[in-house]
Amino acid sequence: MENNSAAGSLKFFIGSTDQVNQTPLYEYLVFQAKKKGIAGATVTKGIMGFGASSIIHSYKFWEISEKVPLIVELIDEKEKLAAFYETVREQLENMKYGCLVTFGLTDVLLYRSGNYHG
Amino acid sequence: MENNSAAGSLKFFIGSTDQVNQTPLYEYLVFQAKKKGIAGATVTKGIMGFGASSIIHSYKFWEISEKVPLIVELIDEKEKLAAFYETVREQLENMKYGCLVTFGLTDVLLYRSGNYHG
Amino acid sequence: MENNSAAGSLKFFIGSTDQVNQTPLYEYLVFQAKKKGIAGATVTKGIMGFGASSIIHSYKFWEISEKVPLIVELIDEKEKLAAFYETVREQLENMKYGCLVTFGLTDVLLYRSGNYHG
Repeated sequence: MENNSAAGSLKFFIGSTDQVNQTPLYEYLVFQAKKKGIAGATVTKGIMGFGASSIIHSYKFWEISEKVPLIVELIDEKEKLAAFYETVREQLENMKYGCLVTFGLTDVLLYRSGNYHG
Repeated sequence: MENNSAAGSLKFFIGSTDQVNQTPLYEYLVFQAKKKGIAGATVTKGIMGFGASSIIHSYKFWEISEKVPLIVELIDEKEKLAAFYETVREQLENMKYGCLVTFGLTDVLLYRSGNYHG
Repeated sequence: MENNSAAGSLKFFIGSTDQVNQTPLYEYLVFQAKKKGIAGATVTKGIMGFGASSIIHSYKFWEISEKVPLIVELIDEKEKLAAFYETVREQLENMKYGCLVTFGLTDVLLYRSGNYHG
């Protein structure tokens, strides 16, 4: 990705306990993004929320539910994000959980790799 | 809200200790959004910040101030968000706290309800 | 900054352990933004991520590495953010760490200062 380029932000609003084949969904998305060479990924944890994936009904009181909202944000060129989304779309559509995925345009002012690994 | 629809992101930058009638402001906004049928809401907590609402002057040193910035982000169709904002605008304008509210366009690629409540 | 004005969001995707002259980079950016009169700043902490600045290789196992992704988001008029970015650009370009900086347009619906400092 070049400096001063038109790019996009692909955001997945999911739940912290959502899983794909015994793997947390947010890890699945981040590892997939890494594998597909997406420029940047950041997962942030919410403290409250609702939406497609956020209604919690726990019928078993021994169950410690720690479901909170998570946002997985990927930044790269629009076409790369669209191609990435196609690789996870079917998985997301067939989950038992709800899901909200948004895409917005953004400019990249600076993208530089670090040459130091501390 | 439909898949592949033009939508918006309404963001409230507030303080964690801001209140409306003894209720935390972020809870007030989330409950109001739920009541008005907004598609998704996520509250994230910042670790540092300043702005309209973030100058802390504590004159009492027995007071444990834990004011941090909060972002309440709502996602839905532009018109629904605009209508929602009108229901809380007066409340926000008349608070003793400062406040920053932004609106940006975003595409919704996927919105699906979960059919499982864990 | 006026209500109902066109504004922007300048976001720095950095690492929590990145430093500028022994100061954490996120604090440097927030203090600089405050000094330059930027309307709002919020720092949020991620729980996972990768990108320009996020590959961790710790060779010393006594070292407790707590590097997580941070997002520093500044909101103000487009021109003010562009001018601010110029004051930190060289610093960011010459760091040993990687860095991702994005800019997106957003509308400001409400910006009001608090008249109460709790």
